[in-house]
Amino acid sequence: MPLTHESVVEKMARRQGKKSLLLVMDGLGGFQTSQKSSELSAASTPNMDRLAYEGACGLHDPVSRGITAGSGAGHLGLFGYDPLKYEIGRGIITAAGIGFDLLPRDIAARANFCTISPQGTVLDRRAGRLSDIDARRLCDLLAKRIELPGIEFFLQPESEHRALLVLRGPNLSPALSDTDPQRVGVPPLVATPRHDSARRTAEIVHSFLDQATDLLKGEAKANGILLRGFDAIQDMPSFASRYQVNPIAIAAYPTYLGICRLLGFETLRIERGVAEEVAALPTQMARHDFAFLHVKKTDSAGEDGDFDRKVAVIEEVDALIPAILISGVEVLAITGDHSTPAQMLAHSWHPVPVVIWGGTAAADRLGGFDEVYCRQGSLGRFDAKFLMPQLLASAGRLTKYGA
Amino acid sequence: MPLTHESVVEKMARRQGKKSLLLVMDGLGGFQTSQKSSELSAASTPNMDRLAYEGACGLHDPVSRGITAGSGAGHLGLFGYDPLKYEIGRGIITAAGIGFDLLPRDIAARANFCTISPQGTVLDRRAGRLSDIDARRLCDLLAKRIELPGIEFFLQPESEHRALLVLRGPNLSPALSDTDPQRVGVPPLVATPRHDSARRTAEIVHSFLDQATDLLKGEAKANGILLRGFDAIQDMPSFASRYQVNPIAIAAYPTYLGICRLLGFETLRIERGVAEEVAALPTQMARHDFAFLHVKKTDSAGEDGDFDRKVAVIEEVDALIPAILISGVEVLAITGDHSTPAQMLAHSWHPVPVVIWGGTAAADRLGGFDEVYCRQGSLGRFDAKFLMPQLLASAGRLTKYGA
Repeated sequence: MPLTHESVVEKMARRQGKKSLLLVMDGLGGFQTSQKSSELSAASTPNMDRLAYEGACGLHDPVSRGITAGSGAGHLGLFGYDPLKYEIGRGIITAAGIGFDLLPRDIAARANFCTISPQGTVLDRRAGRLSDIDARRLCDLLAKRIELPGIEFFLQPESEHRALLVLRGPNLSPALSDTDPQRVGVPPLVATPRHDSARRTAEIVHSFLDQATDLLKGEAKANGILLRGFDAIQDMPSFASRYQVNPIAIAAYPTYLGICRLLGFETLRIERGVAEEVAALPTQMARHDFAFLHVKKTDSAGEDGDFDRKVAVIEEVDALIPAILISGVEVLAITGDHSTPAQMLAHSWHPVPVVIWGGTAAADRLGGFDEVYCRQGSLGRFDAKFLMPQLLASAGRLTKYGA
Repeated sequence: MPLTHESVVEKMARRQGKKSLLLVMDGLGGFQTSQKSSELSAASTPNMDRLAYEGACGLHDPVSRGITAGSGAGHLGLFGYDPLKYEIGRGIITAAGIGFDLLPRDIAARANFCTISPQGTVLDRRAGRLSDIDARRLCDLLAKRIELPGIEFFLQPESEHRALLVLRGPNLSPALSDTDPQRVGVPPLVATPRHDSARRTAEIVHSFLDQATDLLKGEAKANGILLRGFDAIQDMPSFASRYQVNPIAIAAYPTYLGICRLLGFETLRIERGVAEEVAALPTQMARHDFAFLHVKKTDSAGEDGDFDRKVAVIEEVDALIPAILISGVEVLAITGDHSTPAQMLAHSWHPVPVVIWGGTAAADRLGGFDEVYCRQGSLGRFDAKFLMPQLLASAGRLTKYGA
């Protein structure tokens, strides 16, 4: 079998080398217009600017040119798993995030409690951001009362209005469309089989939703459920065996830890703030030779269209760089899993700035770290799946290919 | 089946979004030497310079690095069809260009009337650029008099010395070499089968050429025929269904309209000039959400080695940009299908400058539009097949991939 880029990296990976940290600011990238700079350009980032001078810079496309990446695809790309080859649906990410042990033929979907109007349209896709306590109460109620003959099911709360639905039984298929219309003012969609094998699953889902709607009738806000991202687990090679590292993932949100757990990372959830995530590094870097640290708030600010808040989060992270550099990290990569430009209030396809610092990474001697400087960096523009090999190489963890 | 870049773009394409124009100046690219700038650098292009300031720039390789593209391959790349996967021979392009309806097993070739010396060598590959009237007369003569047992054939004029030969019958194969030697002073080549399946076809072609040579004996200039680009049609996904657009192609030459027709474009032939092509835009942009506009004369000037004329054509197009920008175009890409540097008098492999302007294309704030500035653009250097995804993304026509 011919080698691929993925397989040659696996083959060359060795256990010795420097300790690396992949610092991901979710949705970091933006873009400048004729009138206005990006968030990263606008932010005052003396520490990252120094890393851009001392390190190697470039721009990456999370999936490939022109494609806007979801969270799963964006992170898979950064971890060196081609997102076009490994697809993980929202249901799987949610399950992994709350530590639910999926079996090979289980069907998982992300469930959102929502508010439905008397006319049957979606009023609020998040049921007024339901409390965790109410969510647990409603999940327990539905789990006890709904009956799906021949099928075992699980409904478990994640956080706020978010929950996980798992169907377990014979002859199920994840080839079903979402019921979440992704906007308000319209009725929920009908879960439709994408091929014949999913017909029975569609009937089971319809029955689940009918019974749930009936049982939630008395609820003021959470009187409906929206389902999306039906999926079953896919076999993925573990990050540890691929790259010969012992990886730890640190994040505030279950989703990102869930993705990492699918790849076999050890995980550590720290909800209080980025400073607290960074404070955990010295202990973790003593035990691990690869760490992934996830910052969520850059993306949230971008999705809210809040340019200034995104700038402030970037500056908050920049101020923590000195602490990161004395935490046992020897090689550091900083980037995002996709762009979330505040002017678009959403994920976008724009390439994401990236710097690799330390080890044998070259010093590009750029004047700063942003989308414009990174255009001139030695890494050029590349698909995200090529980041890990370059990071490992900088850490001295890839041996020579061929004689 | 795992997704490819092509299939993920198809999957993410949606019908809503901005209206786009792909403006192709044929053979636009050139290259600077130590002494002399490229044609695009030498041209005064205030309007394109502004687009390079306000838009995103880069360089593309029509097929892939080092490969010189023909017209078919160059345009397929720009339209997002990997030219290494979809190959269309000159015969197919010619047939499509004159609107000849090829059947699935037909063999098509481009035929050039030529002048043969008494010694049997090619004197003029274009028979003194034969008139359309003479070409039609000769095609009719040959069509009536030549007999190929068991085979139906068609010989139809395109323009000047150019014609289309189609063979229709059982057990034909396009695996035949050209008879056109592509230069003068040597005899025509012998059409040779590339494998056994084409032996019978070779014999039929020899018989056709023998009879034609005999019938053309009395002609002063058009006393021979050269054949090239034997091919049969290949199934290609339509541009409209792939990208969820309703596309129109505007060009002066049948070849380019022919390529577009193969991909399912509606086509509009405007022969008078580029200004007239641009004048057609407002009406077309009202009816279509994607337009391709082709400018031929940059390439012709380059092929003639006429640096100054190529500069003049570029300046002529630049002066039309303001009219284009008020024609209903919201996102505009300007590039070439390959380079035709005047110093080479031919197509070349040099990467081609490209700008994407409008929608959510970033503003690279470059100082101008040419090969040198484009090196610094955010699009970097990429294979042409990645242009469409980036153009569609800028027009807001690709949805998010993954959860």
